This record gives sequence, structure tokens and C-alpha cells, in this order.
Amino acid sequence: MADVTILTESDLRACVALDLETVDVIDRAFATLAGGGVVMPPILSLAIPDHHGDMDVKTAYVPGLESFAIKLASGFHDNAKLGLPSSSGLMVLFDSKTGFARALLLDNGYLTDLRTAAAGAVAAKHLAPEGIETAGVFGAGVQADLQMRALQLVRPFARLLVWARDPAKAGAYAARMSAALGCPVEVAESAEACVRESQVVVTTTPSQEPLIQAQWLHPGLHITAMGSDTGTKGELDPKIAGAADRFVCDRRQQSVTLGELRSAIAAGIVPEDWPVDELGEISAGTKPGRANDQEVTVCDLVGTGMQDTAIATHVFRLASEQGLGTVIES
Amino acid sequence: MADVTILTESDLRACVALDLETVDVIDRAFATLAGGGVVMPPILSLAIPDHHGDMDVKTAYVPGLESFAIKLASGFHDNAKLGLPSSSGLMVLFDSKTGFARALLLDNGYLTDLRTAAAGAVAAKHLAPEGIETAGVFGAGVQADLQMRALQLVRPFARLLVWARDPAKAGAYAARMSAALGCPVEVAESAEACVRESQVVVTTTPSQEPLIQAQWLHPGLHITAMGSDTGTKGELDPKIAGAADRFVCDRRQQSVTLGELRSAIAAGIVPEDWPVDELGEISAGTKPGRANDQEVTVCDLVGTGMQDTAIATHVFRLASEQGLGTVIES
Repeated sequence: MADVTILTESDLRACVALDLETVDVIDRAFATLAGGGVVMPPILSLAIPDHHGDMDVKTAYVPGLESFAIKLASGFHDNAKLGLPSSSGLMVLFDSKTGFARALLLDNGYLTDLRTAAAGAVAAKHLAPEGIETAGVFGAGVQADLQMRALQLVRPFARLLVWARDPAKAGAYAARMSAALGCPVEVAESAEACVRESQVVVTTTPSQEPLIQAQWLHPGLHITAMGSDTGTKGELDPKIAGAADRFVCDRRQQSVTLGELRSAIAAGIVPEDWPVDELGEISAGTKPGRANDQEVTVCDLVGTGMQDTAIATHVFRLASEQGLGTVIES
Repeated sequence: MADVTILTESDLRACVALDLETVDVIDRAFATLAGGGVVMPPILSLAIPDHHGDMDVKTAYVPGLESFAIKLASGFHDNAKLGLPSSSGLMVLFDSKTGFARALLLDNGYLTDLRTAAAGAVAAKHLAPEGIETAGVFGAGVQADLQMRALQLVRPFARLLVWARDPAKAGAYAARMSAALGCPVEVAESAEACVRESQVVVTTTPSQEPLIQAQWLHPGLHITAMGSDTGTKGELDPKIAGAADRFVCDRRQQSVTLGELRSAIAAGIVPEDWPVDELGEISAGTKPGRANDQEVTVCDLVGTGMQDTAIATHVFRLASEQGLGTVIES
């Protein structure tokens, strides 16, 4: 049939990185999503209970775009015991006209990491206050790393506080990231101190219990909560949805089932049909971003198939220009 | 990360074919499915309205099996105008323990065609009468071809009747298949004649209108309806669900939404909670097959992710034994 291009993780790393261009690709993807016409079915989720694993399948079709991606992403929580990363996966890029596979992006989760971090930067670009002295991050894993690198691109900060359930991991993160970010990184005394001393906080954990309490909010604070992506996770006190001046999510339908709105609705803090803004409406300019330096803003990111289609289409174009990859006649 | 084996369509064709071994693999897959414990989420369906296309994602996890497949299958109905096949796709085989991709099966739909035809053979093996003089087939495409080859494996017939909406296509099918099957293949005078003169009928069309009427049923007839796989298709008169002695489906939850039970329930012929048997229960021996040579039996096949996981795991084992494929360090 048609030729398929295989791109490995190292091919992909050679042509796309976490930079302002990638942030811009994701910003425009959100704007496209908000513009309507995008077909984005609910996530397919396969549980592998014997091995504490799950596979998620995400996709989105954008009218006019030459290709669309289907992403297969895994999270296997016993892998650490085997010395392996818990998350993995790949994307398949299909021709929008024929449905034929055009490229296999064997990214092992790299593109997901990028587009997820870039979405954090998009949220901060539109919702975080302008001058940031201190940023805070919850969690000490891959996204805690990438989210702060992404934040530096759009809101350079002078100091970073990290909080993690395991103090040893928080300490290792602080030691590792200080050089990478070129600023002091300190372990916060407590979750509360991490929030109270920061102007921007990003939560990156798989927590099923609220990590941030509503009474810790303070004028000018922006929080991006990107950890929750299943119907059992949640990082924020449900009261925060009612207490913040502005609550934004990447996709309403996902936030109410898989994100922070789930617990806020369950707790009766906001009604089920709460008319929350979507990030893409701000990207597209149909809804305003941060209004002033006193607003308390929250952005809930579950992750969308739209981001996958956008990054996959973008990276395939770059790889083709550079002649990267192995072509297989399928 | 881990190595991934790429198998092309020609690799796959070199190691698996439509034969009794393949039928047995699918028969055992249905038995496993009926045994419980299999995790098989609802199908993810992505519509590409601009190009009359759709993508389906199917998967199933079987406890104890070393791997599971996710299948991405496309149907783009404008492809014929471009001189291209309308259906395509690929499967990805994942390690059940780690979630890492082990193999990419670039089958262009070949494995789907095989496992679909094999399911027809499984249905006939358990439900068709023993001695068949004449078989009938509705449709003249790839599955009309493969379903009759599959039927020959388990119920050799002496004569085949074909009916298709387009008489020219039916004629071409008859000319083509006579040599392939080694028996006379004739175009039926009418849909009714095709049913009345046959002991086994297989419907393989994307029809949205009933092709077979309930009043044409006759003692000893078995029908396998495998064309319907969306909420708008249906090949059988809804009354057939009530008129047949036995109605079996591959998966109840799919038959009531995507298969022949959908219209039967909508028409009030059978209740929504009709306790229909699943084919796998017969494969597993917990429900009986055909009881006698007078029964009228119907089997509705929508297609299951379980079949995909079974054929993908099977073919990867065969390909590994033969050293086929290209290994890519991802």
C-alpha cells in the first residue's frame, strides 16, 4: 500500500524540543479546538489490573489539517520495580483524505511530555501574573521538571519552591533543577508554604487527595493543575473551584469527568452545568485572559487528543524537511 | 527503550492465512471472552466527515496472555474514486507486563479480514447444519470472498449463490470465485431465491436496509450477519430476531448498539434485556450449538477487540519463530 515513515524517539528529539515554537503550536491547537468543527471522541481507556497498568487512546480530527494522530499511551506503575519508566507509548499519524497511516512516531511518551508541558506554558501565558518572583511546583517527576522549564519560557521566575510527598525526591529535584533552570530551587517547608510564597503554582502529581487547600489562595495567584486525568484523581480542594475568581479548563467535558471539576461538582461547590471557560477560547481571543494582578486564577488540564494531533503533525513536517526516519513500504 | 518489531503486510501474509489453525485461534478467543475476566472497552470511533471516513479503535486485554493488541482500522469510502482500497489500518501489540510496544503489525487490514472471516467459520462450525448442498452470500466484496473460503473449511458446499445490489459485481464475483472455491458459483435470481435455496447464508454488506425478510426463513437454515458494525447499519428484517429458533451474537453489548439487535429492539420485536447467547459461550461449551437439522439459527457478528488481540498475539509468535520483521530500537 502506501509508504509509512518510522520515526524513533531520537529522530523526534532531534527535531522538536520544549521551546516557544512548540508552545505556539499548542496555543494554536487550543484555539482551533475552541473554534469548533474538531472531532474529538471520548478517551478510550483500557485497564490492565494484573499489572497496575492502563492504556489510554486519544485522538482528534481537525477539518483542513492534512493528517490526524491517534495516540496510544501507557502507564504501568509496577515498571519502577523493574527499573523501567512507568509511562510509554507511541502515536500514529494518518492521512486525513485516505485514512492510510503515514507515520509511526515511536516517541515512548516524549511527544506527550512535550505537548503536556507546552499546555502548561499556554495556561501561564494567558493566566499567570506578569512579574513572577517565586514559582511553586507539586511533584518531583518528569512533568515537575518539564512544567518548570515551560514556565520559564513564558514567565521567567527568580526562585522555585518544590513540594513532594517524598522529601528525598523533593530534595533530589531541587539539587537537579537548580542548574537546569539557572535559579535557586528550594524544598518548600510545607504544601501550604509552597502555595503562599508563590505567584504561580503547577501541580503535577497523580494524587487522589487534595494537596492545595482553598484557604491558602492569595491575591494574584495562578494555579495550573495538570495531574488529574482519571475519574479517581484530583489535586485541588473542591472548594477552590468556587473560591477562585476564574476557573478555566482545557476541555469542559473532560474536566467534569476526569479533571478537577469532577470533585467540585460531586461536593456541590459548583453546579453540573457550570459554564466554565476553556483555555482555547482564551487562545482564540474570544474570552479574556487574566484581567488584573489581583485575580486568583486556576487552569485544569486533563490533556486532549487535539494536542496530540497538533504536535504529531508538526513534528512529522519537521522530520520530513530534515529527511529523518526510516521509510517502510507497507 | 525496548525494541519494537515492524511486520509488514507481506511478512504477515507469509506466516498466517485463512486456514483451520486460524479458525481455531479465533474459536478459542471467543471461548476466552465468554469465560470472563477479559477487559474489552467500548469501541472508540472517530468520524472524518469531510472525506466520508471513519477510524475505529478496538482492543481487549486477556489476563494471562503475554500481550494485547490495539487495532486502528479505517474505512474511507471516497478512496475507490482514487483507485485505493477503502479500508486500511494497523495493529500495535503491547507487552502485558510493562505496556511497552513490542510489535507494529502494518497489515493494511489483512489481519482484520482474516479474524473476521475466521469468526464466520466459528459461527458455522457451531451453528450451521452438517450437510450443506448450497450456500448463499450477500455482497461481492472482500468479505464475500473470504467468508465463503472460511465456510468451505468447516462446511464444504457443492454450490454457491451470490446476491449483490449491483448485478455486474455479483457476476464478476461468480466468475472469479468459481475457480477459487472449486464449485459452481451462480448469481441468485433474487435475494429471496438466494435465501430459500441455501442452507447457510452469510451477509457481508454495509446495508442500512434489511436485505433478508423473515418470511424467507426455512427449516435448517443458518444465517451469519457480519456486515453491521455501526449504529446505522443492519442487514436483517428486525422480525428475524423473533422468528429464528436461536439468535446468537459475538458480544451482546455490541449487538444491541451496533449490530442486528439494535433494530430488533427498536422495532419492539425483542425486549432490550433479551437474554441472547454469545458465540463464545458455545465455543466454551457452556451453551449448546445447533440442536437438530430443523432449527433456524442466526449469528450476528459485529467484531470484537478480543479477536484482534488473539490474531495479533498468534501472528507475532509465528513471525518471531520465523525471524521475520525489522527490529527498530525505539
